[in-house]
Formats: sequence, structure tokens, C-alpha cells
Amino acid sequence: MRLRLAFVGFGVVGQGVAEVLRDKGRQLAERYGIELAITAITDAKKGAVADPKGLDPAKVLAWLEAHGTLAGYPAPVSGWDSLTTIRKAEADVVVEASWTDVKTGGPALEHFRTCFAAGKHLVTTNKGPMVVAPLEMIELALQAGVELRWEGTVMSGTPVISTARRGLAGCTISGFSGILNGTTNFMLTEMEGGRSYDDVLKQAQALGYAEADPSGDVLGWDAAGKVVILANTVLHVPLKLADVKITTGITRITLDDVRSAAAAGERWKLVAEARVDGGKVKAQVLPQRLPLANPLAGVMGPTNAVTFHTDLVGPVTIVGAGAGRSQTAFAVISDLLDIHRTLVERQA
Amino acid sequence: MRLRLAFVGFGVVGQGVAEVLRDKGRQLAERYGIELAITAITDAKKGAVADPKGLDPAKVLAWLEAHGTLAGYPAPVSGWDSLTTIRKAEADVVVEASWTDVKTGGPALEHFRTCFAAGKHLVTTNKGPMVVAPLEMIELALQAGVELRWEGTVMSGTPVISTARRGLAGCTISGFSGILNGTTNFMLTEMEGGRSYDDVLKQAQALGYAEADPSGDVLGWDAAGKVVILANTVLHVPLKLADVKITTGITRITLDDVRSAAAAGERWKLVAEARVDGGKVKAQVLPQRLPLANPLAGVMGPTNAVTFHTDLVGPVTIVGAGAGRSQTAFAVISDLLDIHRTLVERQA
Repeated sequence: MRLRLAFVGFGVVGQGVAEVLRDKGRQLAERYGIELAITAITDAKKGAVADPKGLDPAKVLAWLEAHGTLAGYPAPVSGWDSLTTIRKAEADVVVEASWTDVKTGGPALEHFRTCFAAGKHLVTTNKGPMVVAPLEMIELALQAGVELRWEGTVMSGTPVISTARRGLAGCTISGFSGILNGTTNFMLTEMEGGRSYDDVLKQAQALGYAEADPSGDVLGWDAAGKVVILANTVLHVPLKLADVKITTGITRITLDDVRSAAAAGERWKLVAEARVDGGKVKAQVLPQRLPLANPLAGVMGPTNAVTFHTDLVGPVTIVGAGAGRSQTAFAVISDLLDIHRTLVERQA
Repeated sequence: MRLRLAFVGFGVVGQGVAEVLRDKGRQLAERYGIELAITAITDAKKGAVADPKGLDPAKVLAWLEAHGTLAGYPAPVSGWDSLTTIRKAEADVVVEASWTDVKTGGPALEHFRTCFAAGKHLVTTNKGPMVVAPLEMIELALQAGVELRWEGTVMSGTPVISTARRGLAGCTISGFSGILNGTTNFMLTEMEGGRSYDDVLKQAQALGYAEADPSGDVLGWDAAGKVVILANTVLHVPLKLADVKITTGITRITLDDVRSAAAAGERWKLVAEARVDGGKVKAQVLPQRLPLANPLAGVMGPTNAVTFHTDLVGPVTIVGAGAGRSQTAFAVISDLLDIHRTLVERQA
């Protein structure tokens, strides 16, 4: 089956997906019978192009590489803004990977609503709307009769959402504990080598793991957003970002703390967790000293992990990449394959 | 949708599934719209009953508890053998959890073939046919137009097969490394406490982890069977049990070995793995000294784990139960929910 894609946001994630389509598009077609065609791209900084016959990902990427913009790219349509693209592009699925704002949802909220109103399926890596209004987004998609997937909002392409919602369906999941921010886990790992918080923060910034203002990572806000997404869409409890208990993140952890934990056979981790108890949910992102026998204690560097606590099968832990270009691009590919499978079954 | 189930084999797994249906049947119906009815049970030792209107799982379990056999249970039909049950029971899905023989496939091979010939879906926890003839079984199911699921053959209900085949679809998985036998991992963990191989083997036998003849576990044959299943159904390469390199399993590992590994910051694990390289597959189950930073090194006690090596998202590790009554029962429930989802989509 052919799925026509409209990209809203064409930064690292969007370009990463285009690269996968360029490099593996034929393999995906042979293996899964899916034909993925890009019919529109819009990006606030890079401009917009559309072609109902399909844009060649190799040519678009080469043009962007050469010119730094989509302006001037030969296509029947150019210059559409996000909402126009969502409404007018001849697309079956909108791939939303635009600017993320977990406090307000940002313009992505309007992108989502417009997409559902236009009767188009939606795949997103954008945490904003899934933190601010996850249950409303799921309900709107349901009412519109379209598919919505958000694998890439938590731990990039590591299959966390799909495993929890599909693979563990039938279990009751009472809670989860995770390492959901790679920057801080990288920093804590590096501090074990004897380097100070300030030193490893500078290194994380140099490597592109941390931003100039690192507070979203180091205080725990980024992880808290993922807690909200998992609580709402896996635990099925309404939880707001403001309900997640956060204090000083990892900012107060010293080399002495790291050393004394190691001496006791333990390790500091920024643990992001939520638990449902008696119908109420308790959620927090706090630094904790974990015994080394805890599966989360062995997760090192920028790697992420989450343990789901289930009734029938006990704890299930998934360890994998938390970020990265091809990793997050894969989340989109994975979601597109899942939607494709659903649509093919419906045709059968 | 209502799915009528015929159980072939009613030991720990079959009874575990009946317990879940007794305890959570209503919850499953409310949450997923699935109604699971047991219309037939056959077991070589416990006898057989069938009722097209459905057998009450609570009553059947209570009868079995009281009498140790299904003989005399009030039902319209009794005494059907496995093949008759598969052919004649008014069932949509056969749940195959009979005696496992990974060398020949055992009678389960004929159960599978008869099930496909009868046009019934099949859920199995039986490694036998999926080790001896996995690709043939998948092909037969495809030709018959029925669904086949085997989540419970590897790591019980921990979602390994579904995550690798669905959650990681779109990636190329080039190999995997795992701890796929809980008995030996329990023994190695206990040996770290300073107890000898013979002592911990006796404890494993007392706990029911190891059998009187422990060779299937300690030499690595059990893990090798799971390597074959994952190689064929996740890596998509034809691999036979005889092709898996096995030597002495954990039988030659001494307390001194365990201590010297610990002194070097390493840990002995029985690592089960396969890797595809240049179209060829290399598979083995060998004891290895892993650095503690390897995610498999931190997996302790009877817990299992497997790391899949992928092109787009890097290594993805799943850690969870490798066995257990409710854990393996959940594998069946999970597979039934997956088939149900597929059938519902087809109706849509």
C-alpha cells in the first residue's frame, strides 16, 4: 500500500526520516509491501515544497545540503505554511516533527487538531501536544477515525510505547521507573571517572547532548514530560506536568556523592517514575541511589531505560537509545509501518 | 469478539491461562472487547472435556484441584484425544501447551499440522515445533490463512518475539545476545555468594528450576532451542539446533572462575547468541566473562534478557521473566489479544 507523507518540521528528525526513505525505501517496499512517498514538506526555517506525485528524498536532501533552504527547489508547489500543508497536501499521514514546547504544546497543538479535522493520520515525535493534552489528542484522533502514533516522544525509536501498549496488553501496568534523559545519565556516568559536574556539563554541551541552557535536562523537566506521556498513554491516568514532583535534578550531586555511593555498592541515577496506587497516581523525577542489582543501575552513558511493573509478568525492562538522528527517524518509520499494517488488515 | 479456545495440554501453562480467564476474564472483555471461552480441553494425563457452549474455568480448575483429573467432569463431551479435539472442537483458536521435545518436535508437530489443516488459529508455548520446523510451520499457517503466535516459546510472557517482529520492524536485526535460561543464570548468581556448583544445582532442583536430569539447562540445550527460534523467526535465517555451537555449558565453571572474574570487574554468564554476517549465521551458547558495563552482566537470578543488534536504533535490550506460571500464561493471553486485534481490524 502507498502512504503519502506530509512533513511538518524538517529538522534532524524529518531529514533523518528522509534519509531512511532514500537509503532503505526499496527494502521497506520489498519486505513489508509499503510504499512511502513524501508529497509535502514544510518547515518554519527551511521553507516548503509539495508535489502530489512525490518528492525524491535524495534530491531534496542534496538540495538542502547545498543551499541550506528548500527555497528554489523545483516543485509544483512551494511556500505553504504548516496549516496549509496539513490541509491541502495530498497526504495520507502527517509526520509532525516541528518545534517542541512541553509547557504550552506550542504550534504543534494546532497542527494536531488541524490534521485530525482534515481526516489525516498522524505520526509524531513532538512531545508538546502529548504532554499538554495527550488524552484529548487520542480522543480527537478516535473521533476523526484516524490513526495516531507517538513512539518517538519517549526514548526515540526504542520500542517503548508499542511494547507497553501492545506487547504488554492484557497485563495491568501499575507503574514504571526509568532513566528517561540521556544527557544527565551521560553526565552521571562521566562523573564516576572523577570529573566534576561543571566539567562534564561542558563536555555534554560540546557533544551536543546538552543545550546552552541545560536546565530542561539537568533539573528533570525533559524526563518529567516523558513521565507525563507514559502515565497518560500507558498507565491510562490523567497526569499533568505540574503534578510531577521535581526538585533540583542532578544539579546538587557532587563528586563526593558519586564516590560515597560507589563505596556502598550503589550508583546515583536520575529516576523518572510514576505509580498508580488506589486510583491515585504519584509521579516524580528525583536523583536516587540505586543498588547495582537494580536493572536501571547498569544503564550507562546516554542510554535510556524503563522498567514497567506488571501484574502477570512482573517487571519488564527495555534498554536502548534515548535520542539520535537515525534512532528517532526509526520511531517514525516504525509508526508508519504500524499504521500501514492496520490499514492493510482493514482492506483484507 | 468471541474467541473459542481448545486447549491441547493442560499442565502448568494451560491451567495458568484458565486462572487468568477466571480472575481477569471480565476485565479483558471490558478493556479489549475480547470474550475468551474455553470450549475444549485435552491432556494426555488429565483427560479431556468439551462443551461448545463453553466450560467455566473456575469450575474446571476446582474439579481438577479436587480430583486430580478431568474424568467425571460434567460436560457434553469427554475423552477426545488431541487430534480429535483439534479437528472436532468448536474452537477458533487452539492453545498448544503440551509436552515439549526440541529434538524431534514430538506429538506437537502433528498437533500443529492438524490445526492448520482444520483452519484454526494457533497459539503455542511449545518450543518443539518452533525449533524443529519453524519456517515450515509459519508457511503452513500462511497457506491455511490462519494466525500463528509463539510469544511463550522464548522468555515466557516477556514481550520478546512481538517486540522484535513488530516493534523493531523496519530495522535490520543483524544478531542478538541473550541470557535465555533462568536456571543457569540463577546458579551463576548464587555461586557469587561463595557456594559451589553442586550446592547451587541442588538448590535449583529443590526450587523446581532444574530437573532431576539438569543437562538440558546446564549444558545449554534449552537456550540453544531459543536461539534457533529467534534466529529463524526474528533474524529470518534457517538455523537448526545442531548448528548451534555448544560445549560444556556452565558445568566446568568453578568458584575460582567466578571469583577471578569478579576481581577483574567481570561476571560469567551463559550467553546465547546468533549473528548474521555475509548471509551466513553463526550461533552459539557458551559461558562468557562479560564486563559489568554490558547490559547482560547485570541480569541476576532467574531473570532473562536479550539484546537485539539493529541498524537504525542500535542495541535494544529487553529484560524480564524467563519462566513462571502467570508469566507463561500471559504469553498466551498476549498472543490471543494480538490475534483478536487482527481479526477485529479485518472486520472493520
